[in-house]
Amino acid sequence: AQSSVTLYGRADLNLTHEKAGDSINNAAAGESTTRLNDGGGTTGIGGSRWGMRGVEDLGNGIKAVFILESGFASDTGASGQGGRLFGRQAWVGLSSSSLGDIRFGRQETYSRLNALYWDPSFNGQTKLNESNAVSLDAATANAIVAEGIPGIATVAQARAAVTRNYLLFQNFGDRQDNVISYTSPNFSGFRFGAQIGLSEQPSDATADVAGRYQGVTASYTSGPFAAGVSYESIKVGDVAPGAEDDLNKTFSIGANYNFGFATVYAGFQKTSDVADGSQITSAATNTVAPSSLIIEDQTSYTIGVKVPLGKFTVLANYANAEYEIRAFGGEELELRKVALAWNYSLSKRTTVYGTFTTRSGDFDDNVAVKREFTLLGLAHTF
Amino acid sequence: AQSSVTLYGRADLNLTHEKAGDSINNAAAGESTTRLNDGGGTTGIGGSRWGMRGVEDLGNGIKAVFILESGFASDTGASGQGGRLFGRQAWVGLSSSSLGDIRFGRQETYSRLNALYWDPSFNGQTKLNESNAVSLDAATANAIVAEGIPGIATVAQARAAVTRNYLLFQNFGDRQDNVISYTSPNFSGFRFGAQIGLSEQPSDATADVAGRYQGVTASYTSGPFAAGVSYESIKVGDVAPGAEDDLNKTFSIGANYNFGFATVYAGFQKTSDVADGSQITSAATNTVAPSSLIIEDQTSYTIGVKVPLGKFTVLANYANAEYEIRAFGGEELELRKVALAWNYSLSKRTTVYGTFTTRSGDFDDNVAVKREFTLLGLAHTF
Amino acid sequence: AQSSVTLYGRADLNLTHEKAGDSINNAAAGESTTRLNDGGGTTGIGGSRWGMRGVEDLGNGIKAVFILESGFASDTGASGQGGRLFGRQAWVGLSSSSLGDIRFGRQETYSRLNALYWDPSFNGQTKLNESNAVSLDAATANAIVAEGIPGIATVAQARAAVTRNYLLFQNFGDRQDNVISYTSPNFSGFRFGAQIGLSEQPSDATADVAGRYQGVTASYTSGPFAAGVSYESIKVGDVAPGAEDDLNKTFSIGANYNFGFATVYAGFQKTSDVADGSQITSAATNTVAPSSLIIEDQTSYTIGVKVPLGKFTVLANYANAEYEIRAFGGEELELRKVALAWNYSLSKRTTVYGTFTTRSGDFDDNVAVKREFTLLGLAHTF
Repeated sequence: AQSSVTLYGRADLNLTHEKAGDSINNAAAGESTTRLNDGGGTTGIGGSRWGMRGVEDLGNGIKAVFILESGFASDTGASGQGGRLFGRQAWVGLSSSSLGDIRFGRQETYSRLNALYWDPSFNGQTKLNESNAVSLDAATANAIVAEGIPGIATVAQARAAVTRNYLLFQNFGDRQDNVISYTSPNFSGFRFGAQIGLSEQPSDATADVAGRYQGVTASYTSGPFAAGVSYESIKVGDVAPGAEDDLNKTFSIGANYNFGFATVYAGFQKTSDVADGSQITSAATNTVAPSSLIIEDQTSYTIGVKVPLGKFTVLANYANAEYEIRAFGGEELELRKVALAWNYSLSKRTTVYGTFTTRSGDFDDNVAVKREFTLLGLAHTF
Repeated sequence: AQSSVTLYGRADLNLTHEKAGDSINNAAAGESTTRLNDGGGTTGIGGSRWGMRGVEDLGNGIKAVFILESGFASDTGASGQGGRLFGRQAWVGLSSSSLGDIRFGRQETYSRLNALYWDPSFNGQTKLNESNAVSLDAATANAIVAEGIPGIATVAQARAAVTRNYLLFQNFGDRQDNVISYTSPNFSGFRFGAQIGLSEQPSDATADVAGRYQGVTASYTSGPFAAGVSYESIKVGDVAPGAEDDLNKTFSIGANYNFGFATVYAGFQKTSDVADGSQITSAATNTVAPSSLIIEDQTSYTIGVKVPLGKFTVLANYANAEYEIRAFGGEELELRKVALAWNYSLSKRTTVYGTFTTRSGDFDDNVAVKREFTLLGLAHTF
Repeated sequence: AQSSVTLYGRADLNLTHEKAGDSINNAAAGESTTRLNDGGGTTGIGGSRWGMRGVEDLGNGIKAVFILESGFASDTGASGQGGRLFGRQAWVGLSSSSLGDIRFGRQETYSRLNALYWDPSFNGQTKLNESNAVSLDAATANAIVAEGIPGIATVAQARAAVTRNYLLFQNFGDRQDNVISYTSPNFSGFRFGAQIGLSEQPSDATADVAGRYQGVTASYTSGPFAAGVSYESIKVGDVAPGAEDDLNKTFSIGANYNFGFATVYAGFQKTSDVADGSQITSAATNTVAPSSLIIEDQTSYTIGVKVPLGKFTVLANYANAEYEIRAFGGEELELRKVALAWNYSLSKRTTVYGTFTTRSGDFDDNVAVKREFTLLGLAHTF
């Protein structure tokens, strides 16, 4: 059985100096913390993982393929992805060079997979799928109350309007359960695909299809150029007239071009009708009133560059996200992130790296979201 | 160390169309649901697992053997068997062709192991160790109240009498912890064995031996014929006079015969004094009054067939279980299951399969237990 | 990828007969229990584990190394170390024969690692890092109240003063998270090292540095002689004047000498200002008043011997610990342990073993801590 399975993985750890925002509603506001983080915790080469994968040739150009991939935190040894054993990937499928690939199981979403086109590190040191906690200290909350925005008459209301985790780029949790995916063969550089993450809800009218992930994608690669586009959303039940049944509608597009001395990246993403997780999986009601959705529209873009310098690689990107928050009568919150990173290959499998990221933002100058991470790390792939 | 351990496993996923019973006490009554299930969730080739196993020759015909086998759900990546790491099997032992095998650790019960003799799929597509949730909708519960059975004067009492999960065949949870097992050598086709799953309770009178699993088995194989028999029970403490100290007494017997074009299977199982799990592990009292046991007797039988057709295999079985429920004054609930299945070998390790199962039952025609599963799956062994 | 990682592990199980102390505050007082235990549960060859490890030569005498090691209980299949996936070790590092080793991640503490010098079984059959639950039955508690010790006027106060788990030798939980360690090269038999387990607390005054593990060590090996010494503590925040900010200060020293027919071992450990876990990780306050520390001083020593007799090895040790308990006005509780053990190598990888351990103690003759374990086990390494 040894020959039919490949054991693989990565251990990635970094020493991180982290500075919290000055005006957040937390005793740590403005404070700095030194941590030993797993590579997936902040912005290392990638989260630590181990896995098993295999390919079996079935003849006629068809192969059976599987991946079972477990995520964990090297700093504590704990399982990642909510304690799942194979939380990163767990799927089996059939692959044909002429018919395409079909896979069943827990799989990565297109907004994660297509970061290949617009993120120089492909979800590593310059990753965009980060969640930023925004909260208001008392002074900031009082200043918002003083603005007289309808519905925001108390500090508690001001905080409720904006306190949450904001995704710089939407990612649908990076992976979804119960996914059936199809990816086409390569047609002269073109590929397309579709996937659905079953909601597993009974079919009746009062508990219909709650929380089905669905996405389509297309990509094109030709010489130094590569581009990808996707559309994803979460489909929930629709019983009340006028209720919204298609949430977190996310359109993503990006491309990169390799000039030889450097590869440049650009990406754009627009998400409409953003619900939070508790709305999507709510058992009490499987429909979401438009007024209860938290963000009307999120518009994000990014530009980046990757420069190879012998055994060094230097990476950088900039991202900007604007959130039109419903509770704030259309006022927008803006987050910006800059990442500067390098890595040095001690070998093909072992890398030393450093990353600096900083975030800024504005909310009528009231919300401080500045956070800085400076880290030095070591990643070993096996 | 690589040469001393074999890494192995299986990923098994299926797309399932499930239809709930029409009269169950649940909003999903009569509804259908589409799921992506792990092979172990309904009736695939078998639950997804990965493991490590090894054999070391110690000389003198003695070998050291071990298996560490982890169950998980490929659709979500989550650990199975209540989150255990090696929930399917975790044992080490010594094996001698002349003296037999002794093993220590978490091991499979005889009612699971001996399904080899009476289940065409050996706990796979036609498996019998399934748990059926039976509940009463309001109309059914009221009809039972109207019968005037002693002790059943309200809807709540009617529901309490029958609402629970019914095992088609008793299986003692498939595995038990803290098991010491002995299996004899093969004596001209005969083998016998015994195992005990220690309760690990202190020895005193008020907390004596609660929940010890114990079983004995024998089997005979000769050419196309194979048969097995076992007796298992859960031994609990006995302090109160007249209390029951031996629960879930299960006698199982079955055989199969390979006619070449087909193998036919038959099995019979009788369980007396069925307690539920909370009674067995109760810390408050380690003795169970006979009147509080939930099922007086359960009698189950099954017949089945397996037909090889080139790369196809067709399997079918039928099972019938009768439960004499104490709270119902001796009235019986009957469950019946039909399974029809096929699988097609893409290779020795990769299989496409389909299964259809349906359940029927009666309880003075009041309890609807009909449930149907139709599924199409892919299993890959590594 | 197969060639870059080694899969390894051990399954170790034993049948244990355990006798509880006669005067503990528990229904099981004086009772005996038979269990199937994992080797790590009592005193087997060592806890069951599986892991992956690898070494990559980076040139210039430098290597990349990693270990991911998972602990589990073979008797139930459950994950150990609080459910962590790789709870025993999870680290990556660089190793140089001339510059030394640096490692990042979850690592073993020096008080565990240096048991190599003073424990004949190196944390196995004669292990010293055991936790002994001490409690008072009503008669013992009343007798203490009768002594008229200041602050101990009720049974509840008597119990509160001494009821807890006492470590025979301090071990800092065997492993710590977020550890950065450095170990020197071998200088003519000398090695030294330092490690720090980051507290990951914000830097401000009111929540400063809570619970940082820190240790230094040195060792010397020359022919038949080996010795090691270490100092470890938990550094917490210090805001209140006079509060204690350095807890569980543990000095350990030990050595062994191999006379050929036997190796003899001796070790000594002194711990001051012992806090319990809840004090160290307290979020409410990160400073500990000296008066709230539970043990003023703990002084432990041990002597041991290991005798090879062909395929047999016989091991024995004795340990004594004295605890100066603050709540008792300086009165001391003493625990003593004797371990007698043998193991027999069926092969280099498979071992049958037996261990007998017994504990005694006194607290003005009022506290009974006698507990006996007799066990017979089988361990297989792969």
